[in-house]
Amino acid sequence: MESVVNPWEVKGDINYEKLMQDFGIQPFSEKPDHLLFRRNIIYGQRDFQRIMECIKNKQPFVLLTGLMPSGKFHFGHMFVAQQIILYQALGAKIYLCVADVEAYNTRLADLEELRKIAIEEYLTNYIALGLKPKNCDFYFQSERSRDANKSNKYYNLAGIAARHVTQNEINAIYGEINPAKISSALLQVSDILHPQLIEGPIPTIVPVGFDQDPHIRLARDIVQRMSQFNFIQVSSTYHKFLPGLKGGKMSSSDPTSYIAMTDSVEIAAEKIKKHAFSGGRNSLEEHRKLGGVPEIDISFQYLRCFLEPNDKKLAKIEEQYKSGKLLSGELKQTTIDLLIKFLEHHQEQREKAVNKIDKFLKN
Amino acid sequence: MESVVNPWEVKGDINYEKLMQDFGIQPFSEKPDHLLFRRNIIYGQRDFQRIMECIKNKQPFVLLTGLMPSGKFHFGHMFVAQQIILYQALGAKIYLCVADVEAYNTRLADLEELRKIAIEEYLTNYIALGLKPKNCDFYFQSERSRDANKSNKYYNLAGIAARHVTQNEINAIYGEINPAKISSALLQVSDILHPQLIEGPIPTIVPVGFDQDPHIRLARDIVQRMSQFNFIQVSSTYHKFLPGLKGGKMSSSDPTSYIAMTDSVEIAAEKIKKHAFSGGRNSLEEHRKLGGVPEIDISFQYLRCFLEPNDKKLAKIEEQYKSGKLLSGELKQTTIDLLIKFLEHHQEQREKAVNKIDKFLKN
Repeated sequence: MESVVNPWEVKGDINYEKLMQDFGIQPFSEKPDHLLFRRNIIYGQRDFQRIMECIKNKQPFVLLTGLMPSGKFHFGHMFVAQQIILYQALGAKIYLCVADVEAYNTRLADLEELRKIAIEEYLTNYIALGLKPKNCDFYFQSERSRDANKSNKYYNLAGIAARHVTQNEINAIYGEINPAKISSALLQVSDILHPQLIEGPIPTIVPVGFDQDPHIRLARDIVQRMSQFNFIQVSSTYHKFLPGLKGGKMSSSDPTSYIAMTDSVEIAAEKIKKHAFSGGRNSLEEHRKLGGVPEIDISFQYLRCFLEPNDKKLAKIEEQYKSGKLLSGELKQTTIDLLIKFLEHHQEQREKAVNKIDKFLKN
Repeated sequence: MESVVNPWEVKGDINYEKLMQDFGIQPFSEKPDHLLFRRNIIYGQRDFQRIMECIKNKQPFVLLTGLMPSGKFHFGHMFVAQQIILYQALGAKIYLCVADVEAYNTRLADLEELRKIAIEEYLTNYIALGLKPKNCDFYFQSERSRDANKSNKYYNLAGIAARHVTQNEINAIYGEINPAKISSALLQVSDILHPQLIEGPIPTIVPVGFDQDPHIRLARDIVQRMSQFNFIQVSSTYHKFLPGLKGGKMSSSDPTSYIAMTDSVEIAAEKIKKHAFSGGRNSLEEHRKLGGVPEIDISFQYLRCFLEPNDKKLAKIEEQYKSGKLLSGELKQTTIDLLIKFLEHHQEQREKAVNKIDKFLKN
């Protein structure tokens, strides 16, 4: 199956190495010490060394990311959440943009409803995971409009960006295009660059999945042409997509494809038992002889991606599974045990987080 | 010379009848009693009868127009100015939009400088010509951002509009297109429709030259698809372009092509004498025999377009000129006399207007 990876569609098997080659995404020469980097879940970068220098020299930098307030916050959102918290701890000022204008334009939902989801689902989980109010600008696209100075800059930037890109270039970056996509792409460029209008020129890291790379490429192309602003070139990193329970895409519209942060431990355990795609063999004999395949085993992937932060323990599990010592059901039970521990702790933190929400909201 | 008439370029001889036929612009079945209508300077319309019904039945309606704050306010801006004042007198609420975001995006001028030009050149002249503060919303595109409620609606509308138009349609309406033009077109659609978000569904008249018709067509197409808003279809009228002094285009960048409202009477008179293209014959004998050609005579056109409001007097001048009784120099002198009277009166009114500016500004 040919893969399609762009802001509006992700499907098929993704060959990350080929993507890196085709689009000039670089491996890391230096990276922060964090599970996501160590385990190559974050696999590539553009201009990331600039951010490493800021971290090492304690120079200011910005992390910019957006969230589309739709549905439940689930494990598929964890990679970005963890990176926000990591970079905040490493000294970044966080620009956490609720793409409510985008969501509103796409789905015509109620702005108040979108606001509620953004706060109760997303922000609350970020706080529970460790986001701090200091150096965090949690804002709504639609709210940039409430501050004359910021909003003029914000919306003008989309308009000015439009003047620094040709139709051919848009076509080359996005493929099949239409006015709604162009409009959305320009707003994304404005999202990515506007922290530099507010802070002044400053290194900016945008952690994304490859589907968002067209926006990064467009923003980077435009930065070079808007010389009047003295923008510093945008840095980006690329993380893999967390597979859904059944092995394909994790989709907000299919609850059997994800584990939500608010799933009860019973439901979560049941989802792993019933739905998690296994890398085990067809029979006990075959499994003992050939061993399991951790690369395609969803339980193992969830351990690797965050449930088992201890590298040695993870390596042991991998080795035992591969050798056939550890059975598929046993691996699932290990995952379930850690998952329950994780969810119980997280849900406790979520309750505490509710009281901290106000510190993040200025309006 | 083939003519080109679109929002970004106007050149060549314009065949208004062909434009009407090609683009489905209708003649008037009923129209207000005003020089511009009587003399067919406003020559066509879309859905104008809806506005006539509002006028006759004293129902609320909106006039929406924009101004691009660049250079001096000159005679080429008079048609729109006169229509604003006419419709205000006929009961319209005026939405007078300073396209400063557009101007800023196009030229990267200073927003404060744009604001100054909009007020000192444009608004002051509108007031001198008779614009009243009551029922007049004189606003800056960039200021819609200062009111959360209005600005969210305003910018969201451009985004939502984007989702109701295909790339093919944009190509068909605008011809050669690029992201900046698409962005600008969507902002114009938002300009045209947003009064209905603020007032509720309400008939809206947008008086334009044919160059702006693509925006009208796009807005009208989109209105039909955004059924959730219950917008009332937009009405438009079309006025001819006032020719420049030398017969071609009136261009802000060529002072010998226009008469500015702030030109001294001496300079204005000199411009008519020296530059106004004449419809007179090559020799006195020929002129007496064949008569002048008022259709191409710029002095006569300026009399017709606003300097001589008395229809009988104008008809007499036309007849005398055509018959050869009135010489080209004499016609110019008549124009100069009325021009001086007009400018002296206007400049007096401008001085009074300065004190009224505050009544139009809320910020």
